[in-house]
Amino acid sequence: MNMLMERLSLSKPVVQAPMAGGLATPQLAAAVSNQGGLGGLASGYLTPEELKRQIEETKKLTEAPFQVNLFIPEKRETVSDEQLAAWQKKLPLSQPLAPMSTEEEDWSDFYEKIDIIFKANLSVCSFTFGLPPLDAVKKLKGRNCCLIGTAVSVEEAILLEERGMDFIVVQGSEAGGHRGAFLPTKGEGSVGLMALIPQVTDHVSIPVIAAGGIFDKRGVKAAFALGAEGVQLGTSFLTCKESGASPLYKQKLLEAIETDTRLTKLFSGKPARGIVNQWMKDRQNDEQDTLPYPYQNTLTKSMRKKAQLEKNPDNMSLWCGQGVRAAARETTVKELFEQLIPATVI
Amino acid sequence: MNMLMERLSLSKPVVQAPMAGGLATPQLAAAVSNQGGLGGLASGYLTPEELKRQIEETKKLTEAPFQVNLFIPEKRETVSDEQLAAWQKKLPLSQPLAPMSTEEEDWSDFYEKIDIIFKANLSVCSFTFGLPPLDAVKKLKGRNCCLIGTAVSVEEAILLEERGMDFIVVQGSEAGGHRGAFLPTKGEGSVGLMALIPQVTDHVSIPVIAAGGIFDKRGVKAAFALGAEGVQLGTSFLTCKESGASPLYKQKLLEAIETDTRLTKLFSGKPARGIVNQWMKDRQNDEQDTLPYPYQNTLTKSMRKKAQLEKNPDNMSLWCGQGVRAAARETTVKELFEQLIPATVI
Repeated sequence: MNMLMERLSLSKPVVQAPMAGGLATPQLAAAVSNQGGLGGLASGYLTPEELKRQIEETKKLTEAPFQVNLFIPEKRETVSDEQLAAWQKKLPLSQPLAPMSTEEEDWSDFYEKIDIIFKANLSVCSFTFGLPPLDAVKKLKGRNCCLIGTAVSVEEAILLEERGMDFIVVQGSEAGGHRGAFLPTKGEGSVGLMALIPQVTDHVSIPVIAAGGIFDKRGVKAAFALGAEGVQLGTSFLTCKESGASPLYKQKLLEAIETDTRLTKLFSGKPARGIVNQWMKDRQNDEQDTLPYPYQNTLTKSMRKKAQLEKNPDNMSLWCGQGVRAAARETTVKELFEQLIPATVI
Repeated sequence: MNMLMERLSLSKPVVQAPMAGGLATPQLAAAVSNQGGLGGLASGYLTPEELKRQIEETKKLTEAPFQVNLFIPEKRETVSDEQLAAWQKKLPLSQPLAPMSTEEEDWSDFYEKIDIIFKANLSVCSFTFGLPPLDAVKKLKGRNCCLIGTAVSVEEAILLEERGMDFIVVQGSEAGGHRGAFLPTKGEGSVGLMALIPQVTDHVSIPVIAAGGIFDKRGVKAAFALGAEGVQLGTSFLTCKESGASPLYKQKLLEAIETDTRLTKLFSGKPARGIVNQWMKDRQNDEQDTLPYPYQNTLTKSMRKKAQLEKNPDNMSLWCGQGVRAAARETTVKELFEQLIPATVI
């Protein structure tokens, strides 16, 4: 019996990565859930009001379960005016940056979103960048909402299980977009799924969802062989008709090969995997001097917005996983699902 | 039918990584071959005479096939006296460095080794860091010697197939030790096996051996699901009784976890994965200023030798893959093989 499918009433053990920044649209989430997988919305960059609207919209498009992903607020580091000024000079912008608030992390937004999810009676909620607070866990579990945490190491997975998660998305180094990491590491905080999944499943008892570099039947079968009970895909969904990725971004994904990406902190201050573009090349030597999240993110926001408007891929974030050569296909969610499920897995 | 096992008369589709630097001893290679896998010697840092002796010693210990690995010589870049002097200051050594030869790459050593392999009538020869020259390929194939190339990307695999290789070791980012890469890439030259194997097998027709992060039945099964016909293991063999790793190095491997490693060019000038130690921490900011291979390697040689003698892990290279938490076990080659082969694979 597959626990993930059982608990979430899925017919396919496939989760659509809840990609922030307008990529995981209600249309995409609903299309995935309508295929029997788990579609999802990303609330990380949304206001509570926007999240509420997106949930309502998704509910109009599907009766199947879908998830909402939340970012865990973090303690903010201090950033000096000099550091901000130094970056101001490095940005391809004419107007000066607005002053940035350097106050403590804001939990009110987080709890407002928890309340929205609670009231919408959603059956799944996931978290990235840390451990959800106990009161939020208790509140959602009281309404039988399944909770999914995100881990990039054995230690993170153990803490998430202790915190009461029902499932863990184990994110391999292959994955596109932000690393969900929340613990410091001695070496690289990105481990390939081949090594990571069996090491994690040896240390936790809740089911694991493998994320990173999976794009067809072979990866699904491999993930299950390693001990996972589900897979999460991002890049493959980005080039689907239903995704919110711009035509230019989709084009860049369709052209990319497996060695075109790298991890960078330049866009947000947190490591994330994307296609190497001009901005990443130009600012490569500043990689160690990026401001901590969320400052770097706020800093580059107008550059990215402008690039989007001007259809200029040089200054956009082009998040992308290492499976991109095969994962990026012009397709629909329905067609993608047909290629995903091997007969022998479930 | 498994082509790898068929061609090399193996009873297990398992290759022991031919690890240079005294790690892959004749005892280790023979123990692996005697278990029905493919044992191997690493000639990269050996003189032709040393290689000859090791082959003779291995032949006394096994009648089964084993391989010898060769490094492909590379065109040397120019290094200035100033660059050498700058590094001299950064090394924890009292005596001055010997002057380094900056002459062209030396192919005579390579061809002497090819001749030794030819005369010893070995049935397998593998190559790292590039494409073997056509005359060497022709010579060895004329004696029915199977050739194995090493690739980290689809493009490298395609070139190796065109060059006449019989098999390709596809090295994932999880792998310990040196990256076998030989082509420049736009992004990272290290891709996780989950994404890499199916993308490679979509573009070549010769069988692929998966290397990186594999340590038990689960990884073997996953590698086959992804399209590989064999697996190559390194870290798991290092902690075997038969390996040439020092007791201190073995101890460090037994203590390490999956996030303790990173890629570094500090030891040799080429990226390699090892456990982060004091030298890697202290010199982290010099990562971009390492001298090209083989200069950096020659540069750090006496430091590493001294560290070995003084049993000081701070200045040793502690090559290690991302599966280390589970891969490092105090065991014998025979016991390791018992854990490797799932009933359903072959």
